[in-house]
Amino acid sequence: MTYIGHGGKEIVERVLEPEKAAEAIKGLTPVPIRGQIAREIIDISYGFFTPLEGFMTRADVEGVCNEMKLANGVLWPIPIVFDISTEEINEKGIKEGDKLLLTYQDKPMAILEVEEIFTYDKQEMAQKVYGTTEEKHPGVARTYNYKDKFIGGKITLVNPPKINPPFDEFFFTPKQLRQKFAEKGWQRIVAHQTRNVPHTGHEWLMKGAWLSTHGELPVEKTLTGVLVNAIIGEKRKGDYIDEAIVLCHDVLRKAGYFREDVHLTSITLWDMRYAGPKEAVFHAILRSNLGLTHHMFGRDHAGVGTYYDPYDAHRIFDQFPEGALNIKPVRVLAWWYCPICGEVTYSGLCGHKEHSQNFSGTLIRSIIQDGVKPPRLIFRPEVFDLIMECAEKYGFGSAFVTDKYLQERNPVFSLPDMKY
Amino acid sequence: MTYIGHGGKEIVERVLEPEKAAEAIKGLTPVPIRGQIAREIIDISYGFFTPLEGFMTRADVEGVCNEMKLANGVLWPIPIVFDISTEEINEKGIKEGDKLLLTYQDKPMAILEVEEIFTYDKQEMAQKVYGTTEEKHPGVARTYNYKDKFIGGKITLVNPPKINPPFDEFFFTPKQLRQKFAEKGWQRIVAHQTRNVPHTGHEWLMKGAWLSTHGELPVEKTLTGVLVNAIIGEKRKGDYIDEAIVLCHDVLRKAGYFREDVHLTSITLWDMRYAGPKEAVFHAILRSNLGLTHHMFGRDHAGVGTYYDPYDAHRIFDQFPEGALNIKPVRVLAWWYCPICGEVTYSGLCGHKEHSQNFSGTLIRSIIQDGVKPPRLIFRPEVFDLIMECAEKYGFGSAFVTDKYLQERNPVFSLPDMKY
Repeated sequence: MTYIGHGGKEIVERVLEPEKAAEAIKGLTPVPIRGQIAREIIDISYGFFTPLEGFMTRADVEGVCNEMKLANGVLWPIPIVFDISTEEINEKGIKEGDKLLLTYQDKPMAILEVEEIFTYDKQEMAQKVYGTTEEKHPGVARTYNYKDKFIGGKITLVNPPKINPPFDEFFFTPKQLRQKFAEKGWQRIVAHQTRNVPHTGHEWLMKGAWLSTHGELPVEKTLTGVLVNAIIGEKRKGDYIDEAIVLCHDVLRKAGYFREDVHLTSITLWDMRYAGPKEAVFHAILRSNLGLTHHMFGRDHAGVGTYYDPYDAHRIFDQFPEGALNIKPVRVLAWWYCPICGEVTYSGLCGHKEHSQNFSGTLIRSIIQDGVKPPRLIFRPEVFDLIMECAEKYGFGSAFVTDKYLQERNPVFSLPDMKY
Repeated sequence: MTYIGHGGKEIVERVLEPEKAAEAIKGLTPVPIRGQIAREIIDISYGFFTPLEGFMTRADVEGVCNEMKLANGVLWPIPIVFDISTEEINEKGIKEGDKLLLTYQDKPMAILEVEEIFTYDKQEMAQKVYGTTEEKHPGVARTYNYKDKFIGGKITLVNPPKINPPFDEFFFTPKQLRQKFAEKGWQRIVAHQTRNVPHTGHEWLMKGAWLSTHGELPVEKTLTGVLVNAIIGEKRKGDYIDEAIVLCHDVLRKAGYFREDVHLTSITLWDMRYAGPKEAVFHAILRSNLGLTHHMFGRDHAGVGTYYDPYDAHRIFDQFPEGALNIKPVRVLAWWYCPICGEVTYSGLCGHKEHSQNFSGTLIRSIIQDGVKPPRLIFRPEVFDLIMECAEKYGFGSAFVTDKYLQERNPVFSLPDMKY
């Protein structure tokens, strides 16, 4: 089965079989990598980033920064780069044409073909991608933290990662996910991007987006699904722990708040750039590779601080020519709790704005910290119980990331042993 | 402004100005008509039935019965005929080429150009339109009650009706309604067909259909609306009184359960035929003439007894070629009350079927008859209070049609005095 991904290109899959892999890595110079790069290698190798087959060359980075396009003209908003220090290049004698063995946590992971070694002004990159050079923007900070050189070139995975419980049942490659959708008979699938445990506002955001996505399709058989796609990447103190995010979304279906045949939970490895509208476009591309047809975007999607207007991430989709994206944005407003209606309802329909209560992050957080079960119209009891359970089981007593969690958590994925 | 209606034809408007009308009716043979015909004359004259310009000729009726098409090839599912007895034809010497003055309640209403006088087998018509010849089907009964001859020919309204309060503010001709939509800036409008006072199940049916209709449109400005279009026609004992239906729908918006900018209430005069799927198509045509882009269809739309499968009215829309209809069906399942979710929710998404509570007509009716205010999750308090108020003000103490209401209600419309 051939699956077509972003840019009309076949879904990339660059994974060597074990025997070929063992052969291929012989004698290559090992270069250790950090978590972000390891996650992006997985993304590239399984086609999450189709049509990318590796890290970007200078021409790609320039195109992305200046025109939001790869060198081949395909829409792409955020540079995907492999950074390395001049010292390491010199020390290891890395030169264009080489193949490097990228290692993660002392194990072989992938081969990087050194097509180009280049530099790019980081301030310029920051300004062009994020619209600011301020270091307090986390995407800018991430850019400034890149080492001084970049290597562009193809990636081949030689040692497929093992996804650890409880994440293993939620990890699907783009091809696997598309098979899953075909089995379910879904013709339209809408993505819900998340880094939160779901309160009823999130639940109805998904239900509303499902209805908007379903549109005029028949209803006798379920033809439309919602895919929760949790972004799993670098964590910061105070974030929800990953285990609670994923398991609590999944329990919404298990406990019947979604029918079995309309909902699926999954993860994608990615370190948020908080690029606002450009990150929205990136998420759309990512999810189109996963086989989704629609992507919901709420207010201030992937934004941070006041760098972007809350609706920039809605508007940016108006500017692309037909066919630039193979997925439709579903733009949504907030679902709020309305005490007059006595329910969670859509701000685009409810006329009781002056009485409405938004789901404030602070309130939700304090509810969880207090550990006192809230009304079922804020958190479903099954979700709340599971948050508490996850805190005990995975979070060293906390549903939010702590130093201890950062240091001692069970990793999301590990590489099997492999000789090199 | 030119408005295009069903079949790609300009919206019909056949209404003479007073002076021309006074001139035109001089010397015409008066023929009294009953309520159904008077309502259909209004529909024809203002273009609700575009492209029809009058009552059907034999070729149209044959096309509609045999192929669901007018003689000109335009999709049309239900005969619109003017029936008359042989006695009356003979007595008044009516012949093809004549013009008749149709009078209603002893006042001139419209001119009928006698293009063709014909007969049509009523059993055949019943079988072909309703799929049955059983007289207990109310559409079949209505067919059998037609007098023995039909007159096909154009209609011209000579004495525009005055719509009486409280209906006057809800009556819009197709052209007026389209102007209204333009003022509101609505790009998509979904029709809610109703003959009920709205409980929260109906309210969410509309809210869900709004979301399905809205789809991927931007949200910064309201581009999507829901039009409640109440069918006002012959009443039967036990029906809701018309005043309660219309006013209670409207109060949903006035009381803020719909935002001011997303909702509008209106009426169309029509005697339900209960033709199930064919009536669904008829409703779609009617609402496309009103300028709507979408039409919601629930389970068993316009059905009666067990004559049609609950999903026939969903499926029938699959069979028409592109462009046959200028309106999209939005097929919906029920919204039910789920005690686990603690709210009204969509049966297509909620997984608690075994706990769910459908809004049973019997329950709702008994609530109204008891007059004890139900939980706001069944009836909005403003709706319930207004039902009670309407019962007093318009229903002779009852929210449901009684003999007294049938005999003494204030009519929905009256014809002004006019000499003839």
